[in-house]
Amino acid sequence: MTAEETSGSRRGARRAKTSRGGGRILQLPWRDLELPFAPLQIVGEEQIEAIHRTSMRILSELGIRVLSTKVMDLFEKAGALVDRETGTIRVGEEIVAEALKTVPASFTLTGRTPSKRLTIGGKHMVFGLVAGPPNVHDCINGRRTGNMKDYENFTRLAHHFNCIHIIGNQVAAPQELPANNRHLDTYRVNLTLSDLSFHCTAIGRGRAMDGINMMTIARGITPEQMAQDPGVITIISVNSPRLLDGEMADGLIAMAEHGQPVSITPFTLMGAMTPVSLPAALAQQNAEALFGVTLTQLVRKGAPVMYGAFTSNVDMKSGAPAFGTPENTKANLISGQLARRYKIPYRTSNANASNTVDLQAAYETSMATWGAVGGGANMIYHAAGWMEGGLTASYEKLILDVEILQNMMEVMRPIDFSEDELGFETIGSVPTGGHFFGTDHTLQRYETAFYQPMLSDWTNYGAWEAAGSKDALTRATALWQRALEEYEEPAMDPAIREELDAYVARRREDIGFGEP
Amino acid sequence: MTAEETSGSRRGARRAKTSRGGGRILQLPWRDLELPFAPLQIVGEEQIEAIHRTSMRILSELGIRVLSTKVMDLFEKAGALVDRETGTIRVGEEIVAEALKTVPASFTLTGRTPSKRLTIGGKHMVFGLVAGPPNVHDCINGRRTGNMKDYENFTRLAHHFNCIHIIGNQVAAPQELPANNRHLDTYRVNLTLSDLSFHCTAIGRGRAMDGINMMTIARGITPEQMAQDPGVITIISVNSPRLLDGEMADGLIAMAEHGQPVSITPFTLMGAMTPVSLPAALAQQNAEALFGVTLTQLVRKGAPVMYGAFTSNVDMKSGAPAFGTPENTKANLISGQLARRYKIPYRTSNANASNTVDLQAAYETSMATWGAVGGGANMIYHAAGWMEGGLTASYEKLILDVEILQNMMEVMRPIDFSEDELGFETIGSVPTGGHFFGTDHTLQRYETAFYQPMLSDWTNYGAWEAAGSKDALTRATALWQRALEEYEEPAMDPAIREELDAYVARRREDIGFGEP
Repeated sequence: MTAEETSGSRRGARRAKTSRGGGRILQLPWRDLELPFAPLQIVGEEQIEAIHRTSMRILSELGIRVLSTKVMDLFEKAGALVDRETGTIRVGEEIVAEALKTVPASFTLTGRTPSKRLTIGGKHMVFGLVAGPPNVHDCINGRRTGNMKDYENFTRLAHHFNCIHIIGNQVAAPQELPANNRHLDTYRVNLTLSDLSFHCTAIGRGRAMDGINMMTIARGITPEQMAQDPGVITIISVNSPRLLDGEMADGLIAMAEHGQPVSITPFTLMGAMTPVSLPAALAQQNAEALFGVTLTQLVRKGAPVMYGAFTSNVDMKSGAPAFGTPENTKANLISGQLARRYKIPYRTSNANASNTVDLQAAYETSMATWGAVGGGANMIYHAAGWMEGGLTASYEKLILDVEILQNMMEVMRPIDFSEDELGFETIGSVPTGGHFFGTDHTLQRYETAFYQPMLSDWTNYGAWEAAGSKDALTRATALWQRALEEYEEPAMDPAIREELDAYVARRREDIGFGEP
Repeated sequence: MTAEETSGSRRGARRAKTSRGGGRILQLPWRDLELPFAPLQIVGEEQIEAIHRTSMRILSELGIRVLSTKVMDLFEKAGALVDRETGTIRVGEEIVAEALKTVPASFTLTGRTPSKRLTIGGKHMVFGLVAGPPNVHDCINGRRTGNMKDYENFTRLAHHFNCIHIIGNQVAAPQELPANNRHLDTYRVNLTLSDLSFHCTAIGRGRAMDGINMMTIARGITPEQMAQDPGVITIISVNSPRLLDGEMADGLIAMAEHGQPVSITPFTLMGAMTPVSLPAALAQQNAEALFGVTLTQLVRKGAPVMYGAFTSNVDMKSGAPAFGTPENTKANLISGQLARRYKIPYRTSNANASNTVDLQAAYETSMATWGAVGGGANMIYHAAGWMEGGLTASYEKLILDVEILQNMMEVMRPIDFSEDELGFETIGSVPTGGHFFGTDHTLQRYETAFYQPMLSDWTNYGAWEAAGSKDALTRATALWQRALEEYEEPAMDPAIREELDAYVARRREDIGFGEP
């Protein structure tokens, strides 16, 4: 963070404060985040090598099954052993090592506001909106199926809160729209109601290309320019254990061909899609992730790619997925160690398994967030709004998460250690047992010295009771409503909007009843 | 952790599981905790030295005021500049450095069950019960003044839950009892309803000596034996800025003389008792803490002592204390760096400022807990039950905290990286896209593979709704009641109990209306 930005932040906080009491919700300014400490090393190098060795055996002896001739061709050309009948590809370590040589250690992502360009890699960290839930929930209207009105509102909230840096793949699918072309509608919403970069749907080449094309229109650049300056990204899920679906492979290939990044994320719930032991789960995750990473480089050397981790456990009594567990937290930490071993930008999540926005949602999310931050994640996907193990996008949970993310941003903010901040003179000016409320040092700084929370209430018990004893959940309901009122749609050139509309109309016609 | 303990843990989990559904609450076994990673270094050595240098100037140029002739004598003898009129003691760096040479890097604390001996220092970590609130709260009976019935119940809960290792100084003062001798009653409860070590009240020599004497009776050892094998500890608060009260000094001296540890904890809320800037607050905390540490060594070389940190910020709008804030989290991290610089065991807290057990209580506590754990705390004081900025001890908060602490314990548990756990054979035995539920590897491990939470509910939405849509707070209310039902009072030799009772009766008579 530059000094200029710090100063901007302070001015922002002062403005916000001045207008408080009916004014706008206090929030942190847009900020480029960098981890201020070396990530946690919860296991030693020897253990990391044990995972690596096991994953290399998985790749070379067991292989990955892919339902795509194109992928088989690419790997065969690179020297892998391909069984055409079963689609099993066995990959030697030298092929992986060769691919790793060309993986960029970091890349950028740019939406339609260049000043909000994201750097993905190194010590940089970005937070993403929840993606994928079939349902939405808020405390006023209850639980309902994903729909376009809520899709739009979540996009507005993602744009409104500066701590949300990127939109995931469909915050909640608008299920009233046809499945084969609703991605066009959601891309249009992403591009018009926000100025953020977003995740394309990568099921098939068509959906990936539509995301790429629509972002080039919105940015007013050519596909060639965007290949040099990426604008969209996607998640490539591995159907663990050891299966890459054909449609996913097509999406990956389209993105890599066009220089757009993908995150290879094996879906590895321990006890279900992997063995119950953490080392085995991580070895399998590592094999599957490196397979996808290698594939991107076979498509296009230097294509940007992320190491994705989604290892958590299931409840062995019910088979239900659990998140924010100690095992999930450890997986977040160790996956970071693995990604850094290979010098690949690292994506993980801070999910929870609660059915409602309660204490469990808060402590499980906090646990997973610290696992991700302590693990040096470069992107925390699903960072805002995830509830019910990913089956519901929640408005109140989004507010809770924004508060947690802003707290983390402030923990990460560099500290000024100048003599003035060390405050010897001021300490000497206050008598023993006295207080610092009235000192010049305090008066010069008090408005911006501390993070001012959005959701936390620090009034004393009497004042809190007199104001209606509102707990944080009640306050969260008021906050998302206020944020939607305060939301301002980012301006867009009408010609670009027309071009986007025309693209959507043309593609909707082209698709017709085709494309699954 | 030894293999034997793991095995014990697994057997325990199995037993608990077998008897589930009306059986006992699942919980982790008593465990010696060690941090599995190097603590986070959020600032560099240069910044740590800047804090050190400033704190040395505070000690040598400004000094600390102490209302105790005994303390002035001790420091004068050591070469400090003492102003007898104001009680101000200015301490040169060489005096501090000399004292630091004899501070033990770690020590032990033993209550009446020797197998539960605590190691304080190094990578070891212990969690303590909340201490000091004037009020108590639960969701059934509401908020009320501290009283003996609740004191007893909190002591039972601390004994019941294995993740609570030590009792703080009065979980909530029993205010119906006379202030000058109620410490005798609380010590007796600590010693009879639990077998844990506890914190004495250190306001004055008498209260400290009573704690020491009663623990020797309970353990059946002499004061000389206990000087070699400490049994109680206390918190010495500094009345920041730069004031040590006479009664506190007397308590410190009594404890150190008898070889019992103290934690020197400046009460440093930024903006009130220190400047608003974090470097200044930490410099002041460091000066005050090192003053107390030095004093312990002037009393008795080698006396066990802890570096205490309690730096957080106040709400600059209301002056109310705030905890679990980003500033508090950073202070927890940096204070650990300071304590390790001086090789002194480190005590901090995981407090929050919420008025109720809600989302805020959960995320602020989680934030502060990670600050403490990431900071390598050797003792997290107030770890279970703290609510309302320390003004209320809460039953539901205690349950929430036990879940958070157990999660942290499991994050810290070493991971087995044997070939069996790396699971190559098992991964090879499951077809691509299949699942691991039925494999031998899973069947051998599934009952104990994952941490089984007490408070989290991982059932799916439908099942959760059918069971009454109970949120975590509602479940917490049921859990503390069940824990009190399951609680078993630890056995005590009737002769020891008689001796304790006689001590209490005699001392109560001696004190009479004396001792403040």
